[in-house]
Amino acid sequence: MQRIHISRLPEHIGERVRLAGWIHAQRKLSRVSFVVLRDGTGLAQLVLEGTVAELAPEAVVEVVGEVVASEQAPGGVELHDPSFSVLATPAEAPPIELRRPLLKEQLPTILDHAAVALRHPREQAKLALAAATLAGYRDALDGLGFTEIQTPKIVASATEGGANVFAIDYFGRDAYLAQSPQFYKQIMVGVLERVYETGPVFRAEPHETARHLAEYVSLDAEVGFIDDHRTVMGFAREAVAGMVEGVRTRAAAAVALLELGLPEVPDEIPIVHFADAQALLERLTGETVVGEPDLAPAHERALGKWALREHGSDFLFVEGYPMAKRPFYTHPDPARPEFSASFDMLFRGLELSTGGQRLHRYEDYLEALAARGLSTQPFEGYLEAFCFGMPPHGGFAIGLERFVARLVGAANVRETTLFPRDRDRLEP
Amino acid sequence: MQRIHISRLPEHIGERVRLAGWIHAQRKLSRVSFVVLRDGTGLAQLVLEGTVAELAPEAVVEVVGEVVASEQAPGGVELHDPSFSVLATPAEAPPIELRRPLLKEQLPTILDHAAVALRHPREQAKLALAAATLAGYRDALDGLGFTEIQTPKIVASATEGGANVFAIDYFGRDAYLAQSPQFYKQIMVGVLERVYETGPVFRAEPHETARHLAEYVSLDAEVGFIDDHRTVMGFAREAVAGMVEGVRTRAAAAVALLELGLPEVPDEIPIVHFADAQALLERLTGETVVGEPDLAPAHERALGKWALREHGSDFLFVEGYPMAKRPFYTHPDPARPEFSASFDMLFRGLELSTGGQRLHRYEDYLEALAARGLSTQPFEGYLEAFCFGMPPHGGFAIGLERFVARLVGAANVRETTLFPRDRDRLEP
Repeated sequence: MQRIHISRLPEHIGERVRLAGWIHAQRKLSRVSFVVLRDGTGLAQLVLEGTVAELAPEAVVEVVGEVVASEQAPGGVELHDPSFSVLATPAEAPPIELRRPLLKEQLPTILDHAAVALRHPREQAKLALAAATLAGYRDALDGLGFTEIQTPKIVASATEGGANVFAIDYFGRDAYLAQSPQFYKQIMVGVLERVYETGPVFRAEPHETARHLAEYVSLDAEVGFIDDHRTVMGFAREAVAGMVEGVRTRAAAAVALLELGLPEVPDEIPIVHFADAQALLERLTGETVVGEPDLAPAHERALGKWALREHGSDFLFVEGYPMAKRPFYTHPDPARPEFSASFDMLFRGLELSTGGQRLHRYEDYLEALAARGLSTQPFEGYLEAFCFGMPPHGGFAIGLERFVARLVGAANVRETTLFPRDRDRLEP
Repeated sequence: MQRIHISRLPEHIGERVRLAGWIHAQRKLSRVSFVVLRDGTGLAQLVLEGTVAELAPEAVVEVVGEVVASEQAPGGVELHDPSFSVLATPAEAPPIELRRPLLKEQLPTILDHAAVALRHPREQAKLALAAATLAGYRDALDGLGFTEIQTPKIVASATEGGANVFAIDYFGRDAYLAQSPQFYKQIMVGVLERVYETGPVFRAEPHETARHLAEYVSLDAEVGFIDDHRTVMGFAREAVAGMVEGVRTRAAAAVALLELGLPEVPDEIPIVHFADAQALLERLTGETVVGEPDLAPAHERALGKWALREHGSDFLFVEGYPMAKRPFYTHPDPARPEFSASFDMLFRGLELSTGGQRLHRYEDYLEALAARGLSTQPFEGYLEAFCFGMPPHGGFAIGLERFVARLVGAANVRETTLFPRDRDRLEP
């Protein structure tokens, strides 16, 4: 008898079927026992009459039984008269109580025991959200003529500068882990015009915060022949709309299980200039912020609330961050060159994406590097793209884990990261 | 006037349109000049009457002109009466002659100047093949109920053992770059049963060969509740069929440009046992190979030719490699425990994929590690999955660059790798 997955049970009412999975929970009453079986697709209730042996939590079993419609059972069906065969017996009792509707363990315990904790239905659901987000992002950009690329993660020079770069021993030479695919996706604008990548990036973040990781999944895109950073913001809007649509269509069961309200992505996401945002924050919070080079997380939260209140939008663009804090490849706003032609996209008050127009003239790069006292030598392969003709272009990067964290309302991005890495955590 | 892409020109015959792209080539006759414009979607011929100024190769231009049907022109259309505006002028003459139908430069020069060389239409086409391969792989596995995952690339212990691992300084601790997502995809079988990942893996390969890289893109999959490694081979067949289908449907223009013959993936890929393959090789080559623990590349090529001749198949499974050379998590063949329940898939005589059944019982892992003199301590987070119940499972990994290399008949995998990394190459 062919094994079927639990999600297909309602199609087999009245039939005898074979299931396989893990013993998720067990409840004994005087004359009847209920066993909850879990597989990769869901939970099923099995009803056993009479005395039954104890089944160890997380034992792997095959079960043959009859599918019976039952309004009380989860999913509307249950399995009667089950017979079990055990495929694997746990060596000891699991360190995580998976049978609870919500895990009661603290986050460090959950992360330490990820191999078990991820088996919880809510954790499975978060993984489904992440996969659907990725698929939706790719669908959106594929539909806009982008080509997916995979660029190297071992690089000869730090992309974004700064101290938060991991060094590696590369056959006796110094090399680094890529902080972003920035240089490569720009080079590829000269090749294919529109490219994207979904891959890991590495930041040696010295601080432990609820929103930073040493390694995360970055959804990057870059596009040529733009008018200015507003063109890029239009593509970023399409990407995020695709991600939400991906979740809606590909992870409906996870959305239902987690009881999520999915955001609407407005056709026109509201835009506020950095300078106006600071003035607004002074009105909203009473704090003095005008003149600061960046927004603090609390300010982003306040702006997120404002966008929801004033514009009914979960998303907000802040454009025109000061040039002072942006990397060397940033294009200035031609009208106000102390501000950049760049933007952040906030999602429910969290910075979800950063993007903007890049410099595209070779001489501008030489100037920008010289102004920062940087040699051109480490950037030769990158600069070649600009030396031999590049159009106006720009791009953005979206943090996958942050998106899923805001979607599910997680306070810490580690709750929506598969095997997170930070200063103190390298395992599992 | 909205810019259109070159691929859409045939839809606009008789209209004035705006194009944008790079000056790919120019040819002056006595009364007329031809300029070939390149954008991310193709080449277009522009016809200029009278005397015209020289346009620098790789200059970025916008062009407005009239679309005229022309049987002689590439794509069946050309642009008449074009007027140019220059967006960016190259600082010097490109180091690669992109106008040639085939690049004449040697591979090291092409790789050194990737930012320019990749702009060649044949290089663009290879990138389209890689993207279509990835998409086809994901489509196939999505359709079989797999969930995409993204696992960490910074790990606490070497997955595959051996010396070919890159060490990194992780906040003052020792860490490594993942040689594969092996441990994580196995853990995730306990969570979602069927998972896949498309991401970078890292091997500090000390030897320079035409088929090894220090970093490549691995298409990994792992699946639970299998009968044996033959179940896994069935999924590997579906994955490769999806990749070929992805190329066929998503990269038709690239296939046409490169004049590729796509392989048929047989419903049943022929299978030969390792021991039988060795006996066969002795007959085919006259060499003594029985008793060797692995197949040499030349043997794989001979087997590839044999599979095509005898079975009409570009693909061949070799199963049952000796346990001696396989990693500790390999499941032995229960009937012949000196051989493993594992396989390689050859594509046109090149090892494209390795896979097999894994150990799934906790005590088998303890034994396998002890037999190799390995401590369990570095593997604790991994072993937890087995301690708390894992089904019989297995998986495989496919090298993206190798697949594309065999598809296009490239002699060196670097020809189909975006910015390759090896012992001597870290840039661009």
